[in-house]
Order: sequence, then C-alpha cells, then structure tokens
Amino acid sequence: MSASSGSQTGQRPAVRAGTVTSPAGVRAAGGHCGIKPVRPDLALVVTSAPAAAAACFTTNKVAAAPVQVSRRQIRGGRAQAVVINSGNANACTGEAGVRDAWEMVDLAADALGISRDLVLVASTGVIGVPLPMEALRQGIPALAGGLGAHGEMAAQAILTTDAFSKTGAVEMAIDGRPVTLGGMAKGAGMIHPRMATTLSMVTTDAAIEPALAQRALRASVGRSFNRVSVDGDTSTNDTIILLATGAAGHAPLRDEADAGFAEFQEALTALSEHLARMLVRDGEGATKVIEVRVAGATNDADAQRAGEAICTSPLVKTACYGMEPNWGRILAAVGRSGAEVDPDRVAVSIGGVRVVAGGIGARESLPAAAEAMRAPEFTLEVDLGLGSGAWTGWTCDFTEAYVRLNSGYLT
Amino acid sequence: MSASSGSQTGQRPAVRAGTVTSPAGVRAAGGHCGIKPVRPDLALVVTSAPAAAAACFTTNKVAAAPVQVSRRQIRGGRAQAVVINSGNANACTGEAGVRDAWEMVDLAADALGISRDLVLVASTGVIGVPLPMEALRQGIPALAGGLGAHGEMAAQAILTTDAFSKTGAVEMAIDGRPVTLGGMAKGAGMIHPRMATTLSMVTTDAAIEPALAQRALRASVGRSFNRVSVDGDTSTNDTIILLATGAAGHAPLRDEADAGFAEFQEALTALSEHLARMLVRDGEGATKVIEVRVAGATNDADAQRAGEAICTSPLVKTACYGMEPNWGRILAAVGRSGAEVDPDRVAVSIGGVRVVAGGIGARESLPAAAEAMRAPEFTLEVDLGLGSGAWTGWTCDFTEAYVRLNSGYLT
Repeated sequence: MSASSGSQTGQRPAVRAGTVTSPAGVRAAGGHCGIKPVRPDLALVVTSAPAAAAACFTTNKVAAAPVQVSRRQIRGGRAQAVVINSGNANACTGEAGVRDAWEMVDLAADALGISRDLVLVASTGVIGVPLPMEALRQGIPALAGGLGAHGEMAAQAILTTDAFSKTGAVEMAIDGRPVTLGGMAKGAGMIHPRMATTLSMVTTDAAIEPALAQRALRASVGRSFNRVSVDGDTSTNDTIILLATGAAGHAPLRDEADAGFAEFQEALTALSEHLARMLVRDGEGATKVIEVRVAGATNDADAQRAGEAICTSPLVKTACYGMEPNWGRILAAVGRSGAEVDPDRVAVSIGGVRVVAGGIGARESLPAAAEAMRAPEFTLEVDLGLGSGAWTGWTCDFTEAYVRLNSGYLT
Repeated sequence: MSASSGSQTGQRPAVRAGTVTSPAGVRAAGGHCGIKPVRPDLALVVTSAPAAAAACFTTNKVAAAPVQVSRRQIRGGRAQAVVINSGNANACTGEAGVRDAWEMVDLAADALGISRDLVLVASTGVIGVPLPMEALRQGIPALAGGLGAHGEMAAQAILTTDAFSKTGAVEMAIDGRPVTLGGMAKGAGMIHPRMATTLSMVTTDAAIEPALAQRALRASVGRSFNRVSVDGDTSTNDTIILLATGAAGHAPLRDEADAGFAEFQEALTALSEHLARMLVRDGEGATKVIEVRVAGATNDADAQRAGEAICTSPLVKTACYGMEPNWGRILAAVGRSGAEVDPDRVAVSIGGVRVVAGGIGARESLPAAAEAMRAPEFTLEVDLGLGSGAWTGWTCDFTEAYVRLNSGYLT
C-alpha cells in the first residue's frame, strides 16, 4: 500500500462536520419518491462539470444490477452525477433489473442534460424485488430540479435501518489552495431492507487524475471500510464512489510522488475511517464499538487474519456485549484464524488492561478489564510476539437486538 | 475420501439407543469429583485389553494441554483408557497445564494398573484456569473402582451447557460376527464453561488395525463433525477418540479393501453423523436444525465453501430463527463464499419449496416456504447449476438466547 506512505509523514487530519456538498462544485438533493412508504429514498449528487471518478464495489459474486452497471460506467474515469436509491437493492432481479438500472442512468442523464456515460448508480434495500420504476421516473427529474447544498438530505435518503446519517468533511491544502473532502455513508437495515449493505460516497474539489484517484480510493478503503465488520456478511450492493471536481484550482495530482498527494491520501483515509467507524457505531443492535489491534504478527497478512477472526467471532462479540473480559475466546479466535501463533508468546490487553502475558492469564487484572469494557468504545489488543506485522480494525458487539432486527424482516 | 466409498453400496445403517459401553469389552464410569459445584464432571472409559486407538483433534493453533498430551499418546495407535473432565478446559494454562494433563494420565494408569502409554485425556470447560488437581487425585481412583456398563453416566459427565446427553449405537456384522459401535459427544457450554467445545468418543468391538482405524475415523469425521456449525468458532479442545477392542472376534480389518470395512465405515459415519446432529440440535439457544445441501458446484471443494458460508452466516441463521424464507441472504452468502457462482443459474429451495430458479425469486412460493420453516428441522438446498460438486452440512438458528447465554458467562 505504497500510496498510504503519507501516514508516516504526520498527523492524521481532523474530520469536521460536513457533507458531500461541502467541496466546491458539488450539489445534491435527497427526497422521497415512493420506493419506501414514507421516508426519504432517493439521492442525487451532481458536479458542475465532469469530475474524475473512482469506485470500489462489493467482491460478492452475486453483484446487484446497479453494481454491474456502475462497474461498466466507471471505466471511463469520469462522472458528473450519482443517483442512489434506498428501499430496494435491485439485486437478484435478472436482466430486467439490469435494464432498470440503465433506465435510472438514462433518467438522470436526461433530467440533467448530460451524457449517460457520466452517470453512476447505486441501490440498497430488499433483495429480489423489482424496482418500482414509476416512482423513479417521477423522482429523478424532481430531484434534478432541486439541487443545492443539500448534502445532509442526500445522506438521509440513502439510509435504511440506520439510526442516524453518516457524514463528515476534511479540510486540507494542496499547492497553497484550500481543498475540501466531503462524504456520506450508510450502515445497515430498515423496515424492509436489511442486507448489511454499505453505500458510501466521497466528493472533493481536489484536482486528481482518475487513475490516481482510483488507487487512492482503494488504499483508503483498505484502511477503513475493509476493516469494519458488523456481522461478517458481505452484501451484493456494497459501493463507494469518489468524485473529484478539481474546482480547488491547483495543478492536478497525477502521481503518488506529486506534492500534496500524500496529504490528500491521508485526508481521504481519515474521512473514510470516520465514515466506516460510524457504520460500526450504528451496527444493527450494537451497544459497543471495539477497536481490534493486532501487532507482533509474522506479517501484515497474518495480522489481518487474526484481527478479522476476532472481529467476526460471535463468542468474542457476545462477550463484549456482556462486558466480560473473556480473553480465552480471543485466543481461540486467533488460534483458528490461520495466522502463525505461538500460544506461549501471546499478550492480550482489553481496554488497555493487560490480561494475558506469555499465553497465561492474569486473573487479578480481570476486574479492571471488565471496568474498561463499560465504556461505549474500547480496544482489544493482541500482540503475537513473533514479528512486526500489524492490523487495526473495528467491530461492534452482538446483541439480542441484532437477532430481533434480523429475524423479523420480511414479516 | 476413498474410504467412504461404502456410501454407494447401500443403506445408511440405523442408529439405535446405546452408549460407549454397548460394544463388548468396554466399561465406563462417570461422576462428580469437584471441578464443578454439583453436576457430574469426570468420566472414565476403559477397555478390557489395549484397543486399537485413533483420534482427531482441533485444528486451532491454540491447542489445550490435554490435546497436546493426547496427540503424543495416540502415536502408538493403542489405548486402554480415556479420562475426560468437564468444567475446566485446561487451555491457555502454560507448562503447568501440560504437567496437570500428564498427571491425569498417571492417575488413571496407576488406578487401573496399566501403562501410562495407554491413557488418553480430554478436557472441556473454562479457559485459562488451572485444573483443581486435588479433585482429580481423588476422583480418578474413585471412578476406576466403579467401572461397569455405565456409558450413560460417562456421557452425562462430559456435558457442560448441554441440555441433554448425546449417545447412540450401531449394530452390524463383519465376517458373520456381530459388531457394535457405541458413542457419546458433548455440545456447548455450562455455567462456567462455554467454549462451544466438542468432545466425542466412539467405541467398538470390531477388530481393526490402528492405521486403518485412523483413516476411517478421519473419513467419518469429515462427513459428520466437520460439517456442523453452531457459531463458527473452533474450540481449543475439540477431540474425538475411537477405541476398537476387537472383542467381536472377526479377522482384523487391515485395509480399505477388506470385506466388511466399507460397512464398518458406513456404520462409523452413521454414528458420527447422529452425534454431530445432536450437537446442532443442542446448539446454544437453538430452536431449529437446518440441513444445508449444496449441489451443482464446480467441484466438491466449492460446494463446501458455499455450504459453510451459509451455515455460518448470522443473517441466514437469524432468518431461520424468524422462519422467514429470506433467500436473498442465502444467495449473498454463496456469493461471498469464494465458490464459483453464476447468479443466473442458481436455484434455491427452502424446506423442499423452490423459491429461486435461474437466479430469480418466485414470490408466490414464499408462503409455502415460510410454512415449511415452522418445522423444528428443515433443509436449505442450493443448486449452483455449474457441475456435480456437492456438500451437505448442518447448522442451527441464531437466537436471542444464544446472545444471552454467551454474554453472561464469567459473571
């Protein structure tokens, strides 16, 4: 991940309040078109001119129709509009679903008077149900007529079972010019839709070539969205899109070595991590955000294996819910992860309290660890004592409310 | 898995009531020695002479002390006694734990007057707590003095949070001689211990060489215990042991081609599958047993990937709890499994009701599928439509009770 070397150059930039319309040259709208009964279900984000565009999509082989369409559209590296609906994932809908996704593209292109090549599309919600195209045929032109600094409305309109909207912005400078990045994301669920889908979008007025934007986005996603877990299930619709308008007016970034790129990468990662952590905080039924840090692994890949096993272990996650410093479950998860492990060298800390050293538990420290787990956010740290491989990720606890939410979804 | 070719030769043998003391030449005892406050916590199974012995152990790299000891002991291929305690896993206990496991071996060997090379040991329960050796120093000799046809007492004594004991037996004939196999297993939990540990033991009066017994056991485990999932967490203590006394009196089985071996393999698999399914039925908090059948995969390994993704998906398992035919979650699990998938060829049936064909949902069949899910056991069938790869496994649903059980374990 050479593009992320900027992480060594200094401070991680602060994330402030802001949305996708915080950067210059971006307008948005969000509203209700009738896919859901009442709540907002349609968002449109538009740049004042074709922007450099990058995207990452779900790795699920059952990819939704809008993912298939946007994968094709993004090849050009330029986009001017993104249309996103919630309430219906347009997944497992066959050829008709793909036609519907293309019609969404056409509706936006026509309403905005731009080329259809410049429109990306994303959907989130229930799987296997045809899109109610009549609602979109009315809704997309209506939103196109109401574009403005409505990033918060757009952020509301992409939510499903989320309890709150997820937005943020980062300010920086490139070549002396102020640059802004703004983003939004959605977490999991809503009355009908509940697929643990993640949709996210970042806009910026930075000037950057599409190929470099794609590498930067992939690097930041690898350090943020790809490190969070609510339930280990990967959706058919996961999508993140970056649009860079260039309105900041600096010379375009073309190469990782260009002045300002490392800082841009850091800013993008900071915003992505902020949004990804908000997903976990809003994880279905969650009461805790847990930062899992693995160090001392033979290599980074092993650290990731161990970390992901901890992040997805139902036994670890239920222990976090119960605020019980059950380090045996952490060791068991690490042991089955495939990572190189020497049990006699493992150290574990919970909430900063060392509970295992040299593979042996320190029973006297368990009360302090249990106390630390009462906080809404705490860390689980595992040092494998073998090398310098490291990984950090975020997960949430597993609660009765998660089961309730997900066992009563169709009925 | 050539050893399992017997599956094509005929009927899967019936499993009847019975225990590890059903075969000739096996005695057992079970009782309370003081590891747990009240309930039985120690079991001893002894053969009248050294038996052919085989075992499979956890693949977790954090292996408990008794696993380390029994792995070494089993190399000789012979054993005469197995001592098993519940209430304490003797895992993550360092060198002292290994010494304690060896002392359990010595205590049993001394009490029975046999070589310590002939004793296997297993433990299940809480992790990271030293074994209370004083209880075992009294308990093991006491049990050795009370051996008899007490297979059910032994089966009770290895339980933790299990709701019921798990036993069974199979009758067959080799070379005209009646042969019996008897088994016991434990599922998940109990007031202190709750590690989703699986311990299991099968005895038989068949005569079989240790090397062949090991291959047979591995093949049967691959078709039974390795195909069940409660929560996807692999324990540090999983152990299954096979002891074959030879008391049936037929010529010893030495080779897969020997007359009677295929039938023995089938009988062993039938008993193993019976015990493994009982584990799932007693899965923590479970209300449903779900048989997951994947067919039409490119190969068997792909079928397994798809099947295991379904069996461990929290979203599939909560939908099963809610009795909702949410096939979108099944497709999403298959899509992220790594198996080759063409969404347009996938067919899905729930409880025998086809709900997806050619990747498209059949909404009119959902009420019938929901009705079928009201049964305590039902099937989820996925046909990938690509080849002849197949896999069958078993899982349970994910309930609020699972979360409750596992979030309040230490306190």
